[in-house]
Amino acid sequence: MSTSLPALITEIGRRARAAARPLAALSAETKNAALIAMADELLAREAAILDANAQDVAGATAHGLTPAAIDRLTLDSARLRKIADAVRAVADLPDPVNEVLDEWTRPNGIRITKVRKPIGVIGIIYESRPNVTADAAVLCLKTGNAVILRGGSESLRSNLAIASALQAGGARAGLPADAVQLIPVTDREAVRLLAQADAFLDVIVPRGGKSLIEAVVANARMPVIKHYDGICHVYVDAAADVAMATRILVNGKCQRPGVCNAVETVVIHQAIAEKFLAAAAPSLAAEGVELRADEPAFRQLSALGYQPLVRATDEDFRTEFLALILGVKIVPDLAAAIDHIEAHGSHHSDAIVTADEAAAERFLNEVDSATVYWNASTRFTDGGEFGFGAEIGISTDKLHARGPMALPELTTYRYQIRGDGQIRA
Amino acid sequence: MSTSLPALITEIGRRARAAARPLAALSAETKNAALIAMADELLAREAAILDANAQDVAGATAHGLTPAAIDRLTLDSARLRKIADAVRAVADLPDPVNEVLDEWTRPNGIRITKVRKPIGVIGIIYESRPNVTADAAVLCLKTGNAVILRGGSESLRSNLAIASALQAGGARAGLPADAVQLIPVTDREAVRLLAQADAFLDVIVPRGGKSLIEAVVANARMPVIKHYDGICHVYVDAAADVAMATRILVNGKCQRPGVCNAVETVVIHQAIAEKFLAAAAPSLAAEGVELRADEPAFRQLSALGYQPLVRATDEDFRTEFLALILGVKIVPDLAAAIDHIEAHGSHHSDAIVTADEAAAERFLNEVDSATVYWNASTRFTDGGEFGFGAEIGISTDKLHARGPMALPELTTYRYQIRGDGQIRA
Repeated sequence: MSTSLPALITEIGRRARAAARPLAALSAETKNAALIAMADELLAREAAILDANAQDVAGATAHGLTPAAIDRLTLDSARLRKIADAVRAVADLPDPVNEVLDEWTRPNGIRITKVRKPIGVIGIIYESRPNVTADAAVLCLKTGNAVILRGGSESLRSNLAIASALQAGGARAGLPADAVQLIPVTDREAVRLLAQADAFLDVIVPRGGKSLIEAVVANARMPVIKHYDGICHVYVDAAADVAMATRILVNGKCQRPGVCNAVETVVIHQAIAEKFLAAAAPSLAAEGVELRADEPAFRQLSALGYQPLVRATDEDFRTEFLALILGVKIVPDLAAAIDHIEAHGSHHSDAIVTADEAAAERFLNEVDSATVYWNASTRFTDGGEFGFGAEIGISTDKLHARGPMALPELTTYRYQIRGDGQIRA
Repeated sequence: MSTSLPALITEIGRRARAAARPLAALSAETKNAALIAMADELLAREAAILDANAQDVAGATAHGLTPAAIDRLTLDSARLRKIADAVRAVADLPDPVNEVLDEWTRPNGIRITKVRKPIGVIGIIYESRPNVTADAAVLCLKTGNAVILRGGSESLRSNLAIASALQAGGARAGLPADAVQLIPVTDREAVRLLAQADAFLDVIVPRGGKSLIEAVVANARMPVIKHYDGICHVYVDAAADVAMATRILVNGKCQRPGVCNAVETVVIHQAIAEKFLAAAAPSLAAEGVELRADEPAFRQLSALGYQPLVRATDEDFRTEFLALILGVKIVPDLAAAIDHIEAHGSHHSDAIVTADEAAAERFLNEVDSATVYWNASTRFTDGGEFGFGAEIGISTDKLHARGPMALPELTTYRYQIRGDGQIRA
């Protein structure tokens, strides 16, 4: 690469901006044909993609990445077929572009139509898993946007091979050449330059760890759609069915502890604490969950002989463990439960288990989280589980997109006004 | 003020965050009663408010502000009554909070409801006109948000007097004490500190000149809703009715040249240029509009003896004149008109005048502006003209809010999920 990094980012941005206009005007049929061609090309290039991936895996192994990280990085025939199938599934989704969101006529006769339109150019910065290269690219294409991708350094060769397949498939289907671009360098500086390139990028979506998101937030001049922590709670109300509460808690904590919608703290009404802990302890112990309990809960759990058990610090109640560790907090009433969640949570996903409808409705209205549950697992915070058919991520922001994000969240709107010569008085 | 500026901003932020929870739970009735009490209090404090304003006006005069700026700053009985009436009008608007935006049931029986909710804490930074203090505060209150206001230094006394009236009215109606706060210092540093206080502010809305917006964009860690330039166009198509085109152009350019939805450039199809310029020239000349014309238009306008007339530079076509100056550009066809607008405009408001429906639809779909018009004046880009009943500003962003912003744009949504014990498989 002979050009400087700033010149490279500017050139990529300029190309994306130029591609955005023809992309926005494409019919659903053209976009879907391009998606099918991309899926075909991914499979046609299996050897090249797996070869590039093998080099990434070898590099990651030499760099001492954890087995879990290496597993996330690794592709094989079956995984590549799943990626291609996911691309085909996006082709089957309805096209949100040009949907009429609202329409009305003013007394002076002008007709105002609010129409869904592509955003323009979307920057996506992600880490590790190479499937995101295809997932993110095709969701942006489906919504008529140009995309600039910036993946993790350990998967650069895999990402380049996948992006190149997507570009070749797109080109065969008549897509603008720069609809999908991948930044081919791994310097951290590229993230900063991208975040400042508001002349070219309409929005930037960082997907990854906190330090990546912090770097984007600190530098970005354009809107950022981001996902910070998932410190999710289950509140077991006095009127809870303890069997149901146990099921929802164990599912939330143990089904996949490393994800953002997993439960980190159970908050329990004091009137039901003894009964609930006695009922839940065997299931939690069977899963090997370490409990970090406040003093009253610690005493009760000690009496039950629960292991492993430690006393919770306030910091524990503000931590996204992403592991088989669970905070346990006993509260005097619903108001205290809501106070605890508002003060310690991350406004992601929180649940109440209760048979008391008034308590549930108060919880649903007062807990200011993206998704709030009554008698259901927080694990449902997911585009697929919501029935969106796709997911570009989960937003912990409150503007534009909140909670699971799918195709509509990759669009904006435009007001089209039709008159017959009206002027303003 | 004995505390440091960072400590002051943190304290104001902390108070706003604490006020946001009770505010979000208020009924429409309570909020409307508070708005009425605020309007009453503004009128009850007329003497104090006008006295504070007189001091601001004296200071501004001593500082040599332009007569136009001093006029914008000045309050009198009639203007104060208009401010109070505007507060009362907001009380009459429907409350958007708790509106159900969408609702569906999944195959597993969980019911998902997407409900409109307050954003939380909104920061509004503005310049000059003291009426914004009341306007912005009451729109935030109506939508259940806490607000932190930061007005211009030249209107500090007026803003403090108005904010204090709003607070007193709110307190009488039982509002949380920190629902409305005004930053009582004028240091520019306060803007930077506010823009970085993402622990307290959910969104920041700068309203003012480019340097203010730049300062916010460069520093903000939270979403910004902003308004950059309004470089708006009228495109006179080959199939335009020249009388209608003249009316729409003169309205767009001359009715109020200093506002963002005023026209800055007229783009004319070459086939109609001679006829249109001959028709429009007398009206433009009567308004004293200076024309800055490209070479072909310059020749035609010279032949008509138009005055004042100068040759346009490329820079003229990228300038928001906010004055009786108009760029004139002749293009070979519709595609060239769209190219010019996309390359030189600010994606705010652009109009086509034509009797050709296919040309109009192409323009409405391909010009990527917040509002696009067919046979109507760009001056309709306004919350009031759209029938929104209120306006917090016009957004040139594409995310969250685009074009005129009213009450719904001051809200977010929350997913409330009701189940009967569902867990994820």
